[in-house]
Amino acid sequence: MPLVRIDLIKGKSADHVRAIADGVHQALVETFSVPVDDRFQVVTQHERGSLIYDANYMGIRRTDDVVFIQVLASSWRDTATKQRLYRRIVERLTERPGLRPEDVLIALSPNDRPDWSFGNGVAQYVKDAANAV
Amino acid sequence: MPLVRIDLIKGKSADHVRAIADGVHQALVETFSVPVDDRFQVVTQHERGSLIYDANYMGIRRTDDVVFIQVLASSWRDTATKQRLYRRIVERLTERPGLRPEDVLIALSPNDRPDWSFGNGVAQYVKDAANAV
Amino acid sequence: MPLVRIDLIKGKSADHVRAIADGVHQALVETFSVPVDDRFQVVTQHERGSLIYDANYMGIRRTDDVVFIQVLASSWRDTATKQRLYRRIVERLTERPGLRPEDVLIALSPNDRPDWSFGNGVAQYVKDAANAV
Repeated sequence: MPLVRIDLIKGKSADHVRAIADGVHQALVETFSVPVDDRFQVVTQHERGSLIYDANYMGIRRTDDVVFIQVLASSWRDTATKQRLYRRIVERLTERPGLRPEDVLIALSPNDRPDWSFGNGVAQYVKDAANAV
Repeated sequence: MPLVRIDLIKGKSADHVRAIADGVHQALVETFSVPVDDRFQVVTQHERGSLIYDANYMGIRRTDDVVFIQVLASSWRDTATKQRLYRRIVERLTERPGLRPEDVLIALSPNDRPDWSFGNGVAQYVKDAANAV
Repeated sequence: MPLVRIDLIKGKSADHVRAIADGVHQALVETFSVPVDDRFQVVTQHERGSLIYDANYMGIRRTDDVVFIQVLASSWRDTATKQRLYRRIVERLTERPGLRPEDVLIALSPNDRPDWSFGNGVAQYVKDAANAV
């Protein structure tokens, strides 16, 4: 279900970028009840001046390795589950590709189950007669 | 009102891309009560490795022609209306530019009427004294 | 807290783009209770045909200088506060870089306090025992 947007500054290897995308997805599977094959991600690399971040907000020291991770996902998860997701994403990304924990910024964007269609023009998460047509 | 983001893999003709944007908008007009001139869309083409999709989630066979369509729109529509939108988008895009139904992924992102300003710094969908200033 | 996406058509100077990003942030600080160092923005410039806008929706005359500003922010602000934000963004951007008021389109995308992690895998806006671990 999640549609994930990952934004970072240009100049990373394909392996680095893929490791970030992989790690975010694995963390979603491990903590957010996301099926392993429910993976849809858009990664965009930006010029240095086009991804703007504060290098010290909340006393967290960010560098140009910073990654913005925006997750559009259904809003039924509770706060504890979200906290587990954040921790797990950072554990994954510090392991591979070796990001600093300070460089991982995550924002969730909530929607609902009827807000998804995974193909064929059907709202697959809606279970009712209308959808069965 | 909708702000639509369309993401796909690079290598399509301008006509192909335009047909997708046109079809999505027409479907919104036909099913979501969107005025025909209420059209705001951002289309981004990505390198093959930067738009990541599962080729079989929910048993739906996707190809590199896959299109992610994210629609930011006010959240008052009901589920049946959303289902009509999904069906109509797929009908339109299979007709032109000839996408496979399986390659159309749609995600709605809800907001509210006061969340829009279409120019001049005014919240046009808010009807009250403050806005009339 | 806000994660801001700014989309415009290619061909502007770095100064023009920076002025837009600066002005949007200043307006958020002035009207939305955003700390001055709480700044995270992604600016993307698009080919002419990839950013599609209606040139007259609601009788507002837009040009190719149009800017789409999407603000992901916690949803606790009231309508009057949102209206102040829109006005202030337009005041700032007409002053510098000198945009026309008609060319400023703003859409808010709501989430909640627990939906943010600004680094270290912690939900900094959640105040509870679990987060203190």
